[in-house]
Amino acid sequence: MHTIFELQQLIEEAIKKVEYPAHPSKLYEPISYIMRLGGKRIRPVLLLLSSEFFNNDATKAIEAALAIETFHNFTLIHDDIMDNAPLRRGQDTVHIKWGVNNAILSGDVMMVEANKHLTNLDSGVLKNALHCFNTTAQGVCEGQQLDMEFEQRNDVSIVEYVNMIRLKTAVLVGGAMKLGAIVGGASEEDANHLYDFGENFGIAFQLQDDILDVYGDPVKFGKQVGGDIISNKQTFLLLKLKELAQGDDLALLEAQYPNTDYPAKIESITKLYNSYKIRELAVTEMKRSLEIAFTALEKVSIEAVKKNELIALAESLLDREH
Amino acid sequence: MHTIFELQQLIEEAIKKVEYPAHPSKLYEPISYIMRLGGKRIRPVLLLLSSEFFNNDATKAIEAALAIETFHNFTLIHDDIMDNAPLRRGQDTVHIKWGVNNAILSGDVMMVEANKHLTNLDSGVLKNALHCFNTTAQGVCEGQQLDMEFEQRNDVSIVEYVNMIRLKTAVLVGGAMKLGAIVGGASEEDANHLYDFGENFGIAFQLQDDILDVYGDPVKFGKQVGGDIISNKQTFLLLKLKELAQGDDLALLEAQYPNTDYPAKIESITKLYNSYKIRELAVTEMKRSLEIAFTALEKVSIEAVKKNELIALAESLLDREH
Repeated sequence: MHTIFELQQLIEEAIKKVEYPAHPSKLYEPISYIMRLGGKRIRPVLLLLSSEFFNNDATKAIEAALAIETFHNFTLIHDDIMDNAPLRRGQDTVHIKWGVNNAILSGDVMMVEANKHLTNLDSGVLKNALHCFNTTAQGVCEGQQLDMEFEQRNDVSIVEYVNMIRLKTAVLVGGAMKLGAIVGGASEEDANHLYDFGENFGIAFQLQDDILDVYGDPVKFGKQVGGDIISNKQTFLLLKLKELAQGDDLALLEAQYPNTDYPAKIESITKLYNSYKIRELAVTEMKRSLEIAFTALEKVSIEAVKKNELIALAESLLDREH
Repeated sequence: MHTIFELQQLIEEAIKKVEYPAHPSKLYEPISYIMRLGGKRIRPVLLLLSSEFFNNDATKAIEAALAIETFHNFTLIHDDIMDNAPLRRGQDTVHIKWGVNNAILSGDVMMVEANKHLTNLDSGVLKNALHCFNTTAQGVCEGQQLDMEFEQRNDVSIVEYVNMIRLKTAVLVGGAMKLGAIVGGASEEDANHLYDFGENFGIAFQLQDDILDVYGDPVKFGKQVGGDIISNKQTFLLLKLKELAQGDDLALLEAQYPNTDYPAKIESITKLYNSYKIRELAVTEMKRSLEIAFTALEKVSIEAVKKNELIALAESLLDREH
């Protein structure tokens, strides 16, 4: 089996080798642009790892890994349009650089490119792989829709929120792992266990992200600490606080929403989080998802030692605050 | 074999039977909405017809027909955003009714729905069908990109224009027919001949559309006659006139572009078309494409009598002006 680092190299090399048509250049340049902005390539690496649990030759799964990474980057282009986001990984977003119409269309053709990668898989696994991919892609679209709708609502429940991050983020992690398993030749049962691992790990990862926004080490987090607080983003923490805060505290919270003195706003809301032990509640929720994830992983019928690389990767991803 | 009318019924019934998830309703309602706006269902009908050339059971190709029609309607949603179009078949466009972000996302999930239909095809034809579908979808995106780019240019050549309408419109007609042939069990050669028929027929159809915009019977055309002239749309007719017109005539043409007295503008430019015999040149070009199409159809190795329904359909589609 390859190490995580080797798998990352493998996927980076594969991405570099993909050739898009030269014309129309404005249609294809954004694809190369976003695919080469970098990132940790977590989804394709998890896919390859999952595949290697059942088949040592990770190269057999590379087209599936490219499909997942291409699809993921397509969603980034379209999400950035919808979120009106100017920057992605510190660079101009595609719609800023090429215009909205161009970004819509380049995204569309990326979806086709993702499907082209999938079509290169062995005929024997193709149908299952497509089924998994389509279900995954559909879930991701549903998640983005819910995310947009939640921004217009102020009565979102914790259950609804967790379902939204499940669809928007975790389904793709689960889908990538299931797809890898399918391509590697896993039984349906094992593929589903790996899906469950990925989905629940994905939820834990997103909850951790919500926690780090407030409690992360500013140097190591890589984003502005308190960014979610500033933008009144309805994270697990905020929703939990809204659920628990009473009387004066609730009034204090609501009074902070329009506050443009950001350091004061961050301090004030963090104080509320602390007094209601929101961090601890979020950690408990995160650990609950992790437990489901690791229980599912235990059920995968491969030697325990093979799982170590995945466990190490999962732990390192959750250990980002230190 | 079924008649065109029966195939239209078949596809309408199939479209009605497709069930999209109930939630998130704003994601899926636009899909039902646009799929039920109607239209002639030309692409799926051609697909089913093409399939029946090789296999009497058209129901085997219905999922492919649904894939093509779903994909086509997805492109309409996204094209309408890009073109800033308020109406589609006399009704509000999706982005007007649900907003741009929603329209982007509903379009995205329609692409997934199209792929889900394809995945329901028999494993034996799946890989070829996907390959055909992806190539087609990619071509359509390229066509839309060129169409957008051409709007910003005033040096588009006739060759470029015909290539653009080939990609934007004709590739999907060709792709639908090839897909039908593949699902029906045609040889690769026959499938390619049907592709060639469809693509060249599609080009002829679009050229006919350009001609009808100026010379169509206002009652039967179904669109505003002169609409392309009013909007300075670079059709075959306008590009040909720009190529041929000299001196005063060219100055007269250019002076008309900003004219907001539309009846006068239409009259003036139509007069120029007449004096340079642009209609005749467009008809010649259209007939050239038709000849290529029918030569390709002749090569398809099925009984000549089986082709009659297709020939009748093609002729009726080109006969819209009378």
